Amino acid sequence: MIVEVITIGSELLHGLVPNTNVDMISDRLADVGVRPSYHTTVGDVPEHLGEAFRTAVHRAEVVIATGGLGPTADDITRKVIATVFRRRLILDRIVLDQIRARFKERGLEMPPLNETQALVPRGANVIENPLGSAPGLHFTHLTTECFALPGVPSEAEGMLRAYVVPFLKARNPGLCSGLRVVRTIGIGESALAERFQGFELEEPELTLGTIARASGVDLHLSASSRDAMWLQGVLDRGERKLLERAGSHAYALGDRTLSEVVGGALLQRGWSIATAESFTGGEAGATLVATPGSSRYYRGGVIAYSNASKEKLLQVAGETLRRFGAVSAETAKEMARGARERLGADCAVSTTGIAGPDGGSAEKPVGLCYLGYAGPDGEAAERFVFGGSRADIIQRASFFALDLARRSLGAGVAWSAPSSRS
Amino acid sequence: MIVEVITIGSELLHGLVPNTNVDMISDRLADVGVRPSYHTTVGDVPEHLGEAFRTAVHRAEVVIATGGLGPTADDITRKVIATVFRRRLILDRIVLDQIRARFKERGLEMPPLNETQALVPRGANVIENPLGSAPGLHFTHLTTECFALPGVPSEAEGMLRAYVVPFLKARNPGLCSGLRVVRTIGIGESALAERFQGFELEEPELTLGTIARASGVDLHLSASSRDAMWLQGVLDRGERKLLERAGSHAYALGDRTLSEVVGGALLQRGWSIATAESFTGGEAGATLVATPGSSRYYRGGVIAYSNASKEKLLQVAGETLRRFGAVSAETAKEMARGARERLGADCAVSTTGIAGPDGGSAEKPVGLCYLGYAGPDGEAAERFVFGGSRADIIQRASFFALDLARRSLGAGVAWSAPSSRS
Repeated sequence: MIVEVITIGSELLHGLVPNTNVDMISDRLADVGVRPSYHTTVGDVPEHLGEAFRTAVHRAEVVIATGGLGPTADDITRKVIATVFRRRLILDRIVLDQIRARFKERGLEMPPLNETQALVPRGANVIENPLGSAPGLHFTHLTTECFALPGVPSEAEGMLRAYVVPFLKARNPGLCSGLRVVRTIGIGESALAERFQGFELEEPELTLGTIARASGVDLHLSASSRDAMWLQGVLDRGERKLLERAGSHAYALGDRTLSEVVGGALLQRGWSIATAESFTGGEAGATLVATPGSSRYYRGGVIAYSNASKEKLLQVAGETLRRFGAVSAETAKEMARGARERLGADCAVSTTGIAGPDGGSAEKPVGLCYLGYAGPDGEAAERFVFGGSRADIIQRASFFALDLARRSLGAGVAWSAPSSRS
Repeated sequence: MIVEVITIGSELLHGLVPNTNVDMISDRLADVGVRPSYHTTVGDVPEHLGEAFRTAVHRAEVVIATGGLGPTADDITRKVIATVFRRRLILDRIVLDQIRARFKERGLEMPPLNETQALVPRGANVIENPLGSAPGLHFTHLTTECFALPGVPSEAEGMLRAYVVPFLKARNPGLCSGLRVVRTIGIGESALAERFQGFELEEPELTLGTIARASGVDLHLSASSRDAMWLQGVLDRGERKLLERAGSHAYALGDRTLSEVVGGALLQRGWSIATAESFTGGEAGATLVATPGSSRYYRGGVIAYSNASKEKLLQVAGETLRRFGAVSAETAKEMARGARERLGADCAVSTTGIAGPDGGSAEKPVGLCYLGYAGPDGEAAERFVFGGSRADIIQRASFFALDLARRSLGAGVAWSAPSSRS
């Protein structure tokens, strides 16, 4: 079933307001095993919306539009539907009374402008809106089902749940869809793809996608079927294969974050952690505390942005800084050791590097960084050269510092019995 | 000029990753007085992308697509362009060498898969990508200019600035549009709206919009005209009014960040700064170092997540913690004082609070925080109760801590001669 979502509003098109309706619609449609194929956004311009509707009914079987049903002059959806699909607008007395009643409930007189919200294109059904004054519309153009809903997310979601989803379910009974996510770090998109070459030939029912994030690459495995049991089995098998091939790079399933995985591993061991950061300026610590309850294992840290503070607050030897430089494996190790001791933590991670855009040299380029680890099990330092902007480099180094802790703690994703996962 | 933006990626279509490119493209196109009319998102499905390209070249004069230029099998943009526009893919040796060189710089061998990124549809120009391995493409279909850029926002933005915008500027001389942004903090959207009541009646040529961000509310003032001088004058007058009415809440013009404003004020005074963070876990420090060159004034900080570390690393008196609690004005002040002394900085800011979702009480609810300041000019503490998620509360507290430094330093936006601004 080809579904197109049209979101209407200049504020959405120009990025002044985040366009959250498409996520919400996507989530609701997943309940009936359907995903949108197209999403179009247009401003409050009648010709553009008309063109979007014409294109959508041509290429999709279901069109869900949100926005433009309000009472003001820039609410154009009703008029455009009337023009494009040649359906005269008729004032619906019942709808008008409902709108009046809504205002009355709140002790208000209905402003005359709101009368336009009771205009219904001939032959369209009215979708009730228990949360607001703008009713929705449902009509069929040739074989395409069209739904027009208000732009307010809560109102649109209520009407999707109460009307659109049940309608589609009746048309398309039984179809289920499933998604599994395997999150990886420390391996590039293309290196991962090489490990998964041939996967889709082996598992033709599954669709494998990759999403590159600052935190690493997420693998998305999806499938749909009318047989829920079979679907579960196919997804389980696919997920197991992903985990086997991703190896220790796989750090989490689903939407679990690296910060949560590290926190979980620390809690399991009963360990605490500290951070020593130079060029990441606190980003690694902030990533750790993003997880609720992090005070149970995070002791705190030192942001040692200058050499003096590395010596004073982290006891890095002046000799180490002179001989190897601030950006070196030796300094990273001593920083982690210093944070572990000063904060009385079981283990610590550290970052030192060059975030750019200036300050790089041929020998120590922008993006170079050393990450350190110190724990009861020993010390380690790793060297990376990250690409991207200053913000990208800082974020990557912070994630990789947490990942160094994860690997030192031996935490990852072992394939477990399906009952333990959603 | 009708512009269509196509964003490519199933993760965008299904709402797994926020679709930020359309905002960014909208902002960059505003520099040439153009705004997109259509925005289409499709997944990594060749038929759907093909259909989106066919529709776009039919209804738009400029098509800007982002995404799908990576090296893996779900990166379909090159192939779809080749099919839809009947242009054979040719391996470009120069591009291939550039990609190889990029990997080599980082001490890596180019994976064989990346070779596909050097495939160029016949007759297309290659747009250089200084930040990543995926080059962009530019070709003309009938009278429509088509640009395909990578999905990574920083890479796409770099190529828009360096190639697409200059190209469009050359094609569309004459029409100017202007945008002025006044950034505010510490005042809500509706309180701001009250200050600006009647503004659009006084200034009918100007459009005023507000965008609420974690960092505060941005005021957007826009207009367009063929008369550049007139446009400049109208925008200057409007901007001056905004600044007058926003008062000390206005901290920056344009896309200047609070971190840059604080950094600039410190440099101007020749002062250094340090941070002492409890519940923000390093976020305030990370916000400071987001600005290149921050090592000139940022000494570093202490993340004192536990009471013990507040005493040990920041010399907060045990008596203060016992009597007033960790989340108190007294602790915030002593934290700032401690960071200032330990890090040898001219001034320091501190944060202590309850990020939630647990740990709140009737007396000290989730969202409560105290921000401290210590400098040669004295000490201060401020109390806030922030709403939103854990992440929102942490981010807001970090911004407001920087804002406390800004106000202590007496930095803001005074209306200055137009020549000093873009």
